[in-house]
Amino acid sequence: MDHYLTSNTKNDRFARLVGIELVEVNLGSAVAKLELNDNHLNGVNIVQGGVIFTLADFAFAAASNSEGFPTVGLNVNITYYKSPTGSVITAEAREIKALRKVSGYNVDVLDEDGSLVAVFSGLGYRLSKK
Amino acid sequence: MDHYLTSNTKNDRFARLVGIELVEVNLGSAVAKLELNDNHLNGVNIVQGGVIFTLADFAFAAASNSEGFPTVGLNVNITYYKSPTGSVITAEAREIKALRKVSGYNVDVLDEDGSLVAVFSGLGYRLSKK
Amino acid sequence: MDHYLTSNTKNDRFARLVGIELVEVNLGSAVAKLELNDNHLNGVNIVQGGVIFTLADFAFAAASNSEGFPTVGLNVNITYYKSPTGSVITAEAREIKALRKVSGYNVDVLDEDGSLVAVFSGLGYRLSKK
Amino acid sequence: MDHYLTSNTKNDRFARLVGIELVEVNLGSAVAKLELNDNHLNGVNIVQGGVIFTLADFAFAAASNSEGFPTVGLNVNITYYKSPTGSVITAEAREIKALRKVSGYNVDVLDEDGSLVAVFSGLGYRLSKK
Repeated sequence: MDHYLTSNTKNDRFARLVGIELVEVNLGSAVAKLELNDNHLNGVNIVQGGVIFTLADFAFAAASNSEGFPTVGLNVNITYYKSPTGSVITAEAREIKALRKVSGYNVDVLDEDGSLVAVFSGLGYRLSKK
Repeated sequence: MDHYLTSNTKNDRFARLVGIELVEVNLGSAVAKLELNDNHLNGVNIVQGGVIFTLADFAFAAASNSEGFPTVGLNVNITYYKSPTGSVITAEAREIKALRKVSGYNVDVLDEDGSLVAVFSGLGYRLSKK
Repeated sequence: MDHYLTSNTKNDRFARLVGIELVEVNLGSAVAKLELNDNHLNGVNIVQGGVIFTLADFAFAAASNSEGFPTVGLNVNITYYKSPTGSVITAEAREIKALRKVSGYNVDVLDEDGSLVAVFSGLGYRLSKK
Repeated sequence: MDHYLTSNTKNDRFARLVGIELVEVNLGSAVAKLELNDNHLNGVNIVQGGVIFTLADFAFAAASNSEGFPTVGLNVNITYYKSPTGSVITAEAREIKALRKVSGYNVDVLDEDGSLVAVFSGLGYRLSKK
C-alpha cells in the first residue's frame, strides 16, 4: 500500500476532519472507509450527501494518484440510491480507463450490509507526466 | 429567510463541522458560504473536492427544500474549473425546473474574486406532497 | 427476448433511422449493436457523439422497460474514451439498482476489438406501477 | 457565422441524417434547430432521447470548435425535463469556462413554446493549440 500512497492522500486534512480512513491502495484502485457518527448527519438525521461524496472522492483521489501522475478531479457524477444503515460505509474505487491526460474511475459506496448506497463516476485530469 | 428555511438545513451537523454558513434562502434559491482554513485542504494544499461539493450540496438542499416538499438528493454532476483563491467560497443555487417528483438545480461555486470554481447540477427527489 | 421486449423499443423509429439493432433483452439488461457507415460520421470523419449516445440510450431503454414499468430517461452521464475502430459498435446495458420510482443502469459501449468506447450511466423514471 | 464555422460541424453527416440545422455560431456559442418528424419518435410516440441529445451535442460541437481549437466531446450530463410539444426544437449552447485543455458548455434545449425540454452540460477536450 505504501508504494502507491501519494502525498495527496497521505496528508489530506479534510479527510481527517471527516474521519475517513484509507484501507487499501493498489495500482488503479483504492478502498476507504468511514465510521459514522452524529457529525455526519444532516438536519433530518440521515447521512449528509457531502459525507458520502467525500468518502468516494477520497477513494477516487487515492486510486487516480496511484499511477504516478499527479491527478486532480475534473468531473464527478454521483447517484444516491439509499441512506446508509449501520455504522460504517465503505468506498471502493477502480480505474475504468486511463488516457494520456484524463482517467476515469468508478466508485461504489456500500453500507455495512454491502447494500449499494451510491455510485460515483470520477474523471481525473493528469497534471503532468510522471 | 426563516420562512423558507427547513429543518433539513437548519440543523445540519455536517455543514456545521465543515464550517458552512447559510447566507440566504428564498423560494427556489439559496446562497451558502464557507471561510476556508487548513482543515479544508487536501494533501497537496489545495481545497479538497469534498469541501467544494459539500458547500454546493448544502445550497442545493436549502433551495430544493424551500418549496415545501421534503427533497433528497438523487443525482449530482459537478465540474471543477479551478482551485479557489482567497479565503471565502460562495455557492449560489437556483431552481432550473421542478416536476412533480423531481426538481433540478444549478449551483455556481465562486471564490472571493467571483471566479467560477465549480459548476454543480443537482437533481432532487421529492419525498411527498406538501 | 420477446417476453421482455416492450413497444417502447420494438417500434422505435429513430433507432431504425440510425440503423440500431436490438440483439438481446433480458430482465434488467439488454444488448444493442450498430453497423457503422458514412451516415454516422461527423465532419472530421469520426463517429458522431450522438450516434454512440443513441446506441447506448436504446440499450438503456430496452433494459429499463424490461421490468414491466414504463420508464422514461431522466438523466444520463456519458464519458467518451475513444473513437471506435472497426465497423460495428455494441452497447451492453445492465441494471445497477431499481428503486420504486427511479432505476439506474450502466451501459458500456464497445467497438469490434472489445475496447471501451464510452461509459453511459442512465437514470430512468418509472411512470407507473406495472 | 462562417468565420466560426469549422469543418467539424460543416460536414457532419449524422446531423444531416437527423435533419439538424445550424442556425448560428459565434465565439463560444451556437444555436441549432430541428424540425421534428416521425423518424424522430420512439416506440411510444415521443421524441427519442437520442434526438434531443444529438441536437444539443451538435450545438455544443459548433460552440466548442468556434474558438480555433479542435475539440472533442469528453463528458456530457443531460437531464430531460419534458417531452417537446410543437414541431421544432432548438438547442442553445454557450461556453461556461475554457481551460487550457478542457472547456465546459451549457446547452438548453427548448421546444416551440420556449419550454425547457432538457439541460445538457458538455465538457470538451482540446486536441491541440490553434
